[in-house]
Amino acid sequence: MIGYAFMGAAHSQAWRTVNHAYDLPLKARMRVVCGRDGGAVAAAADQLGWEEHATDWRQVIARDDIDLVDVCTPGDSHAEITLAALAAGKHVLCEKPLANTVDEARTMTEAALAAQAQGIRSMCGFNYRRVPAVALMRQLIAAGKIGTIRQVRAAYLQDWIIDPDFPLVWRLQKERAGSGALGDIGAHIIDLAQHLTDQRISTVTALTETFIPQRPLPTSAPTGLGGGAGPAGEGREMGEVTVDDAALFLARLDGGAIATFEATRFAAGRKNAITIEINGSTGSLAFDFERMNELQYHSTAAPIAEQGFTRILVTEPEHPYLAPWWPPGHTIGYEHTFTHQAHDLIQAIHSDTDPSPSFTEALQIQQVLHAVGESAGNGRWTSVEKAA
Amino acid sequence: MIGYAFMGAAHSQAWRTVNHAYDLPLKARMRVVCGRDGGAVAAAADQLGWEEHATDWRQVIARDDIDLVDVCTPGDSHAEITLAALAAGKHVLCEKPLANTVDEARTMTEAALAAQAQGIRSMCGFNYRRVPAVALMRQLIAAGKIGTIRQVRAAYLQDWIIDPDFPLVWRLQKERAGSGALGDIGAHIIDLAQHLTDQRISTVTALTETFIPQRPLPTSAPTGLGGGAGPAGEGREMGEVTVDDAALFLARLDGGAIATFEATRFAAGRKNAITIEINGSTGSLAFDFERMNELQYHSTAAPIAEQGFTRILVTEPEHPYLAPWWPPGHTIGYEHTFTHQAHDLIQAIHSDTDPSPSFTEALQIQQVLHAVGESAGNGRWTSVEKAA
Amino acid sequence: MIGYAFMGAAHSQAWRTVNHAYDLPLKARMRVVCGRDGGAVAAAADQLGWEEHATDWRQVIARDDIDLVDVCTPGDSHAEITLAALAAGKHVLCEKPLANTVDEARTMTEAALAAQAQGIRSMCGFNYRRVPAVALMRQLIAAGKIGTIRQVRAAYLQDWIIDPDFPLVWRLQKERAGSGALGDIGAHIIDLAQHLTDQRISTVTALTETFIPQRPLPTSAPTGLGGGAGPAGEGREMGEVTVDDAALFLARLDGGAIATFEATRFAAGRKNAITIEINGSTGSLAFDFERMNELQYHSTAAPIAEQGFTRILVTEPEHPYLAPWWPPGHTIGYEHTFTHQAHDLIQAIHSDTDPSPSFTEALQIQQVLHAVGESAGNGRWTSVEKAA
Amino acid sequence: MIGYAFMGAAHSQAWRTVNHAYDLPLKARMRVVCGRDGGAVAAAADQLGWEEHATDWRQVIARDDIDLVDVCTPGDSHAEITLAALAAGKHVLCEKPLANTVDEARTMTEAALAAQAQGIRSMCGFNYRRVPAVALMRQLIAAGKIGTIRQVRAAYLQDWIIDPDFPLVWRLQKERAGSGALGDIGAHIIDLAQHLTDQRISTVTALTETFIPQRPLPTSAPTGLGGGAGPAGEGREMGEVTVDDAALFLARLDGGAIATFEATRFAAGRKNAITIEINGSTGSLAFDFERMNELQYHSTAAPIAEQGFTRILVTEPEHPYLAPWWPPGHTIGYEHTFTHQAHDLIQAIHSDTDPSPSFTEALQIQQVLHAVGESAGNGRWTSVEKAA
Repeated sequence: MIGYAFMGAAHSQAWRTVNHAYDLPLKARMRVVCGRDGGAVAAAADQLGWEEHATDWRQVIARDDIDLVDVCTPGDSHAEITLAALAAGKHVLCEKPLANTVDEARTMTEAALAAQAQGIRSMCGFNYRRVPAVALMRQLIAAGKIGTIRQVRAAYLQDWIIDPDFPLVWRLQKERAGSGALGDIGAHIIDLAQHLTDQRISTVTALTETFIPQRPLPTSAPTGLGGGAGPAGEGREMGEVTVDDAALFLARLDGGAIATFEATRFAAGRKNAITIEINGSTGSLAFDFERMNELQYHSTAAPIAEQGFTRILVTEPEHPYLAPWWPPGHTIGYEHTFTHQAHDLIQAIHSDTDPSPSFTEALQIQQVLHAVGESAGNGRWTSVEKAA
Repeated sequence: MIGYAFMGAAHSQAWRTVNHAYDLPLKARMRVVCGRDGGAVAAAADQLGWEEHATDWRQVIARDDIDLVDVCTPGDSHAEITLAALAAGKHVLCEKPLANTVDEARTMTEAALAAQAQGIRSMCGFNYRRVPAVALMRQLIAAGKIGTIRQVRAAYLQDWIIDPDFPLVWRLQKERAGSGALGDIGAHIIDLAQHLTDQRISTVTALTETFIPQRPLPTSAPTGLGGGAGPAGEGREMGEVTVDDAALFLARLDGGAIATFEATRFAAGRKNAITIEINGSTGSLAFDFERMNELQYHSTAAPIAEQGFTRILVTEPEHPYLAPWWPPGHTIGYEHTFTHQAHDLIQAIHSDTDPSPSFTEALQIQQVLHAVGESAGNGRWTSVEKAA
Repeated sequence: MIGYAFMGAAHSQAWRTVNHAYDLPLKARMRVVCGRDGGAVAAAADQLGWEEHATDWRQVIARDDIDLVDVCTPGDSHAEITLAALAAGKHVLCEKPLANTVDEARTMTEAALAAQAQGIRSMCGFNYRRVPAVALMRQLIAAGKIGTIRQVRAAYLQDWIIDPDFPLVWRLQKERAGSGALGDIGAHIIDLAQHLTDQRISTVTALTETFIPQRPLPTSAPTGLGGGAGPAGEGREMGEVTVDDAALFLARLDGGAIATFEATRFAAGRKNAITIEINGSTGSLAFDFERMNELQYHSTAAPIAEQGFTRILVTEPEHPYLAPWWPPGHTIGYEHTFTHQAHDLIQAIHSDTDPSPSFTEALQIQQVLHAVGESAGNGRWTSVEKAA
Repeated sequence: MIGYAFMGAAHSQAWRTVNHAYDLPLKARMRVVCGRDGGAVAAAADQLGWEEHATDWRQVIARDDIDLVDVCTPGDSHAEITLAALAAGKHVLCEKPLANTVDEARTMTEAALAAQAQGIRSMCGFNYRRVPAVALMRQLIAAGKIGTIRQVRAAYLQDWIIDPDFPLVWRLQKERAGSGALGDIGAHIIDLAQHLTDQRISTVTALTETFIPQRPLPTSAPTGLGGGAGPAGEGREMGEVTVDDAALFLARLDGGAIATFEATRFAAGRKNAITIEINGSTGSLAFDFERMNELQYHSTAAPIAEQGFTRILVTEPEHPYLAPWWPPGHTIGYEHTFTHQAHDLIQAIHSDTDPSPSFTEALQIQQVLHAVGESAGNGRWTSVEKAA
């Protein structure tokens, strides 16, 4: 695993757990974690449960005893590490967004397709697909339960930078993060909308906004999502926020659906509210991550007097991913999405099939992000380039 | 109509509206409202829309142009007025509880049965039966949708006297109100539980509590539920609270169900929370008055992966009482329960059938209240006397 | 009152009730209802409680005993009736949208301003402003409780025409209704967003869609929202739907906020779901009409460990409009919004002040609708013309 | 760890995770898991992550390299194993209920107190205390946020044996399980009510019921909660259910509060619904495990117009147990309660303090269970024996 911050911790929890939650044909073994700061990565290895630690990811990739490279760094280094890993014949799990630019993402995708011919698997980490309620939502749609998809309304709402004194961390810098709310969280709802409907976004009109254009520079090494800002006052150094705080867009999908999307870090009180509702010709489905064990399902097939949204508590063994977990009503949490992702990747490697989302899918999401950015800049409806 | 306080206002709204909401074979005409204070009742007649006003209810009952007497006074005068009205050949709508004692209730019931033989109708005002969601709940149970009833959990939670400075209004005096939370609001959930399950409570074990035993005497005429208390401090006069603040009881019903009941005026933050959940062998139904346009319905007949509580928005024309109201999703409120009650009473009078709840039903509820009071006093399981 | 269908019924309920719910300096008197079909309007007068009925609105407007004209017809006749009424020196309440075109709306506004100089009042019926929870939301925002407004997300979701066999009623015809979901329900959320934030929409980018382009012609006179369609099959006659089924748009407001709007009649299971959430720099507020007695309020002023969305049950006497209604927790319904509107209009007439929303405000909403329609047609960000 | 079924799997997940989630002064090491069936326990060791496995718990307890014994067997063997472990100088974590009888529980408690003098720690596994929302609830009550506690309403609702064909597993046999819903799940809400209020139940009146008195004998080894029943039909063998399906009781607490309790396995649609609401003189708190990341908090200290239940999303670093987990809004699940429990036990062992709940606390809960059983049998209010 390269990188060991927030995503690294979440992935580590998955790697530690997946062998024990599921009965797998291949067992995950946590060989080595890699980071630039030798002392910090040593501490991380100990804390997160890795056998070894290293500071040079090239050496790690070169090792014979490494089969899979898990890329958890910021987006600006995804391409370089991933390309090297694929070239070295390693399977790759790369955190989303696949890259900070479409060009990088395209190069990575081409490399992945070439590697695929050699039996090398690659996957991009859109973990929210693996929420059981989301997976159930996809099953119900695929089974035709809500008919023809008409509308999607998706939002990803957070509020962690609402305070103007929150410091200028890497996620607020375009050169590190690629974009702001758009790529960080908007990418997830783009993926969910497309994955759930099995339609692709074809054209968008967008708006982005940066509410707080300047923020104090961080005074300490970032931990978790943040890092401390210096004391407020005259003397403190400020920097430009170069990414969007919020991104809104309308879209048409290639199967005829229309959609609204909103990604923001300024929705006071909304902490990790991924909400997605899909309306079809014979029913609707709605999900809110803050109640991730629940799915709302309405069907016009029920008698009129009994219709309504059914709150399915998605904790039954019949539900996706849940058979090996706990009895009904004994809920799971955020981290389980990564365990499910690890499970699916291991199964794919073992069965010589392609895991999803592939780099091709991730590239297409990158192209949607690009189209959104372009539309926000020029004010026009913008078509999404075809990934293929 | 005799009495014009909170219940009188609610009933007046119903009488003003029922002709216009429904297409009725008999039209309600609001002839005269009656109260002891001449000036106040004149103002009430004007405000509430009555043609005339009077201070002597005996004279009102004696009038030939009165067909129906609506008794909205405190419980201690229900019996006298109702008996006189029935004796004068008037139909009677009497607010709940039917009386403050079982003896009075029994006398009233006997009079009602005798009057019934002359075509005189009587009804006790348990308005919450006429919430459309509650009526739908009864329909679904009667249709066998949740199978054999196993359990009932019913609560009626309020908090309007949580402040120790709230004054000693009539509802806190046993001689006026009969009991406290038990008779005032507990009576409603007893009625709902029995009405919905079509089972009768046969035996109870109970506990009652008065958290604030002394309160300041009211300094002004009561309005609405209350009336002002004098200023806090040394000199103010205090009185004994002689009723329960909260009543809790367990019950067995004659159809095999078991139940918990709770009526309290001390549940901070719960304003008019009538919650009732009924679990059957093949499903459950749950209702909360604070969301009175909704009913929660779970059925084990659905595929396991799709099961859950369905929030039925009870606003469709297919739902009880709702055809003449607004389009789906355009909700109704508390006062509509009285309009529905008025509708049902007028229909019963016109069609020469007995409205429900009859006095016999109301007497049985009184007997349950009595058994609860007795059990709370002696600590024993207590059987409910048979009304018949 | 001119017109007596759905809106006429709702307004009548308000006029019947407002004198009794509130203590008003002027009393509403329901003199005459007017409609084209003599038999039907006679029945309506009887059912809805009007003293007289008429078939010629010009004659009604000419009467000396009429002070206020309540225009409840479809949008295509608003202008003609309203202009005549104002010219005759009558106060006017005109249902929304003010007109089907900006030009008509502008003419009406000019007439209203001219009449205003003579003490004649005019008001446009955006009833949802008068939901107590909405009025409270505005109070809290005005008091600075959520700080600087950053984002608005507003949706009005219905599903009443989701069935392709639902007939081609007047609301689906551009020449009668002006537009579809956009003007009918989108107008409400435009009004709410602007009213609540006290900001005006300045520019929009939009998308509209008609999912079902042809529908069966109605076979019977429309009642309520609908009217029966002929039997499905070979021979039935079809017609073009000439309005939008759904309208989506992004907006910038003149105070710096950004917003998403969605109006649709195709959200299966959503019956009258007006949802609006407003995020400010120090808090958020959220409302859903299907739970109209509730308001969700988040404030960053609370201790972090105690923060969250507070579900305010908006039924206290301290809340807007509610003092004369029922005790806390005893909810109100849809129709009360019209009673509150009637109250505010009567108070304005009595106190010689301008009721809100004025025609000027309604014209501005019309201009937003126009800009949305234009943007949906040409795919460009479109500025909203200034009403003033 | 002795036993490796449902509880064993949950505890194993905690032991695997606790070192990595928290920075602990002592590290958990998973030395050996013990069970009667050699093959099955070997498989369990592999699956659950234990270094070794064994079939004789006495030998395990005798090992020098074991410091802590985690007892996850059915209740009928808790006493024997725990007494042996304490006698051998091992710290003990014993699943709840502490034992099947008060006598056993008392003996265990005495042994624990004796061992405590030698620095040996013992803890009973009431894991739901360690839900962060529950821990926050306790903090808020202890801080006086809701004033004097007036009322508690607690329910634990499940439905896993609602099907009459569900087999007669050990949990339905008195000799193995001690009692049914009462001890299995009722014990949890007794613990929560007392833990949260810091009051002890002093007297109870109760009712228990067995709705399905006979069930098919299981045909296969139990897994998870269940095990298959033989095919329905003539020939299948049936057995007596010797425990309660549901237990209801009212209680008085020694601090003046009154309470209702309900434990049932027959609430169709309720999967693991631990609901507890506590009403105090100045506020209320409510929790539902099916939404375990949320706490509802009402305070009368807020301005009246802004009061309501605040849904605290208990995922902030400021909340109990959550600092090392994920960012706000990134929820946790059921299993985390065991990780938190493991954390607290390890901290207590390291700091030479007593973990809670102690055996003394667990004995008192056993005494409450006993009083409930007795009252259900004889129909009388029954005092809870003092543990001390």
